[in-house]
Amino acid sequence: MATIRETENAYFKYVKKIMDFNEATALAAWDMRTGSPKKGAGQRAEVIGTLSGEIFNLSTSEDMKHFIDTLSDPGIQSDLSEKTIKSVEESKREYERNVKIPAEEYKEYVILQSKAETVWEDAKAKSDFKMLEPYLDKIVDFKHLFVDYWGHDGNKYNTLLDLYEPGMTVDVIDRVFGQLRDGIIPLVQEVAEAADQPETNFLYKPFPKGQQRAFSIHILKEMGYDFSAGRLDETAHPFQISLNPGDVRVTTHYDEFDFRTAVFGTIHEGGHALYEQNISKDLIGTPLCSGTSMGVHESQSLFFENFVGRNKAFWEQYYDVLKEHAGGQFEHVSVEGYYRAINVAGPSLIRIEADEMTYPLHIIVRYEIEKALFNGDIKVKDLPGVWNEKMEQYLGIKPDHDREGVLQDIHWSGGDFGYFPSYALGYLYAAQFKHTLLKDLPDFDDNLRSGRIRPIREWLTDKIHQYGKLKKPMDILLDVTGEELNAKYLINYLNEKYRDVYHLSRVK
Amino acid sequence: MATIRETENAYFKYVKKIMDFNEATALAAWDMRTGSPKKGAGQRAEVIGTLSGEIFNLSTSEDMKHFIDTLSDPGIQSDLSEKTIKSVEESKREYERNVKIPAEEYKEYVILQSKAETVWEDAKAKSDFKMLEPYLDKIVDFKHLFVDYWGHDGNKYNTLLDLYEPGMTVDVIDRVFGQLRDGIIPLVQEVAEAADQPETNFLYKPFPKGQQRAFSIHILKEMGYDFSAGRLDETAHPFQISLNPGDVRVTTHYDEFDFRTAVFGTIHEGGHALYEQNISKDLIGTPLCSGTSMGVHESQSLFFENFVGRNKAFWEQYYDVLKEHAGGQFEHVSVEGYYRAINVAGPSLIRIEADEMTYPLHIIVRYEIEKALFNGDIKVKDLPGVWNEKMEQYLGIKPDHDREGVLQDIHWSGGDFGYFPSYALGYLYAAQFKHTLLKDLPDFDDNLRSGRIRPIREWLTDKIHQYGKLKKPMDILLDVTGEELNAKYLINYLNEKYRDVYHLSRVK
Repeated sequence: MATIRETENAYFKYVKKIMDFNEATALAAWDMRTGSPKKGAGQRAEVIGTLSGEIFNLSTSEDMKHFIDTLSDPGIQSDLSEKTIKSVEESKREYERNVKIPAEEYKEYVILQSKAETVWEDAKAKSDFKMLEPYLDKIVDFKHLFVDYWGHDGNKYNTLLDLYEPGMTVDVIDRVFGQLRDGIIPLVQEVAEAADQPETNFLYKPFPKGQQRAFSIHILKEMGYDFSAGRLDETAHPFQISLNPGDVRVTTHYDEFDFRTAVFGTIHEGGHALYEQNISKDLIGTPLCSGTSMGVHESQSLFFENFVGRNKAFWEQYYDVLKEHAGGQFEHVSVEGYYRAINVAGPSLIRIEADEMTYPLHIIVRYEIEKALFNGDIKVKDLPGVWNEKMEQYLGIKPDHDREGVLQDIHWSGGDFGYFPSYALGYLYAAQFKHTLLKDLPDFDDNLRSGRIRPIREWLTDKIHQYGKLKKPMDILLDVTGEELNAKYLINYLNEKYRDVYHLSRVK
Repeated sequence: MATIRETENAYFKYVKKIMDFNEATALAAWDMRTGSPKKGAGQRAEVIGTLSGEIFNLSTSEDMKHFIDTLSDPGIQSDLSEKTIKSVEESKREYERNVKIPAEEYKEYVILQSKAETVWEDAKAKSDFKMLEPYLDKIVDFKHLFVDYWGHDGNKYNTLLDLYEPGMTVDVIDRVFGQLRDGIIPLVQEVAEAADQPETNFLYKPFPKGQQRAFSIHILKEMGYDFSAGRLDETAHPFQISLNPGDVRVTTHYDEFDFRTAVFGTIHEGGHALYEQNISKDLIGTPLCSGTSMGVHESQSLFFENFVGRNKAFWEQYYDVLKEHAGGQFEHVSVEGYYRAINVAGPSLIRIEADEMTYPLHIIVRYEIEKALFNGDIKVKDLPGVWNEKMEQYLGIKPDHDREGVLQDIHWSGGDFGYFPSYALGYLYAAQFKHTLLKDLPDFDDNLRSGRIRPIREWLTDKIHQYGKLKKPMDILLDVTGEELNAKYLINYLNEKYRDVYHLSRVK
């Protein structure tokens, strides 16, 4: 009979193997996206399939069940470290998610999902929702079925939210998204009508790729991104991927006629990377060694992209460096003019091109649609109509084609219902974190103005990064800010900022 | 009871998994050598360890034993395809090599090996053989023991040769290396005394890295290296690595004051890569999907490096392209002068810097020493003395320090006894292949002169590349050239070439 300590050690040895396979899979994925030769792609996909299959087998094995059962025994919890308890919880979450769906059904779903993504590309190109509809119908049916297998507490949609944002519920989101929507819509209106619109022509002048790269590297270093534990590559779509805390990679995309793509993309991914690089080394090899949720992850990227990267004080320090890297495009532009230009905002159709003021509205549209879909209030066939209606209602504009409307994102074709809200939740977390941070570091802007980003990064590491998945999203929020999620911090931030950018009166 | 066909299918499914893990391991290794962040290296080594452990377990499992036993049954061989028969032979080779050594002893050996490599670095830096001696002693003892476990047919050293060059024996090597040594030594003498030595000063002029890279890519494409099934990166030590035939990567090293490092390094690795890119797709996922031996692999890299890349006709086509990429360093140099300079030859101490004429002598020194060591004729402590004696005897020069002598290579510290001969065997194969190729393509030089490398590459693919490990080295040699290994082809080539380069009389 093994002692508790022996079982605990055996469990960690077992999950370390899973994490090693995870790292190998992540590397294969990174490699495919950064430059692996296309003729090897078919075989590479099989390698990823083999590794994923192995991870699935290990995560759902009888051995795993035994570890979970033994180490979840309430009688021994007091003998276990917090790391063990939380790791086992995470393994159990994973185990149950995987074993509750019959293998055959899951396989059928994976095949459908992959087909739907291909059909989506085609449907989007042709702006033809009808092509995708039967596939989406089946995907939604499967998701309903999975929710039944997994079980649900209250609203069915809660189970989907929980996949990306553990513990998040419709009740909370309804409350904060409602607050947010009502707070933003009038601001969007005012900004659109503002007399003094920023001059932006100079943004679209040529800025050589090599120079953009050099500036991106400079800014990443200033943010505290550790290049001896990471690297910056170029891809069509920027991303961050963590192999382990000593190897956290970012990519960016260079548009030679709009440097903002690379600069703000790099800062955004750099924010994600700072989270992963600063997780406690003690968690390496456990299921806790990554960001705690999609939303908290996004809070870190948006914190840096918006509160640091689109901050006037930040550019008072770095605008000269940017000028040194660029050609003459900024020659006759003051830092104030530059600051206003990079913060130009207004209603637009495409989520990924939206500014920070209107972005949450794009998410709210998607959230309300997903929730209605999983509560039986609408059908898949209703999606284009409902989409256009809500865009009109919240943003005042309506797409002429579904390509620029309901077909713009791949998420639903991939079955990722419940994912979209985390983008806006991340933004709300970020604003709430920043509000607390200002109490500890009231000279936030002064720090940026003199290039001292370190104390800010250290505060985030101390409060958030280091814990990985040791703390759930809601626990982090409560521990750091002392209160539940509250949209007022983001609303206040947006009001303050955009009144400044658009020269509107301070108080409406 | 499974049918033969079912067992065959199950076997291939099983080995495919091993090959997928192999690809993941190769990618991890490539990544570590091309730019993975150093802080992730420790954890990355553990990932490689986990994958290798899995490969070892799968290759030596009861399942594998069952597949091997069932499919090796002489009664069913006529029902099996050649691919199955040869794959199972390869799996069996691997199985026996692994299971015959007790796990504990092997583990001890791996630890020793890794320590010895570290000690070697230090010993080399300090030029102190005594530091390394006790480690080498133990490694040689282990290798003796392993040979006993594995068994040997005739000379004990044959078992070590067989690890790298299946089927190769001391009898064959003694014969051909003897021939080669006796053929080269007088030529080296004559070349050293030649009145008309090539002018080489212009070689060492600055040649920017970016331009070297552009030229290297150009030449790789001309050779038929498929960039949609590969990529070129930069590393301290050039290498080629195959993930699968659709993903065969090469690296090179740029010396801005000696472009030859990159150009000939790239052509050499490109020769290896052409082998791997052109293995039949039918062999993907089987243990047959790689070059058949170290020697045959080296024959392909040396074929391109020396017979193509150091050929006068080749530069009659590409010298102008080289000039376009370089600065003015070749301005006053004729193609004849250039050709003579890149073929400058003479005795030197360091193997990896040796020219193509003296290189085989460096290998023969190492071969004779290894053979003596495993036949009990000398001891590890005798190595420095024997080394210096043989260098004096064959090359006429002797190192002042062991750093430039017996300590220059890492191979022995890594336990790689039996490996060195394959470098010279590859060269011998290459010359013998070329002799046959000239019968099919008598206009070899004319082809190069007009940039038609394709028929040469296609001939090599047809005769060698496509088979992977379906044919053993000796079978390939016999099938292609119709005769056993014969050193006269290389001796004739070297005589002809160096008499031309050094303006010596044609017939001695």
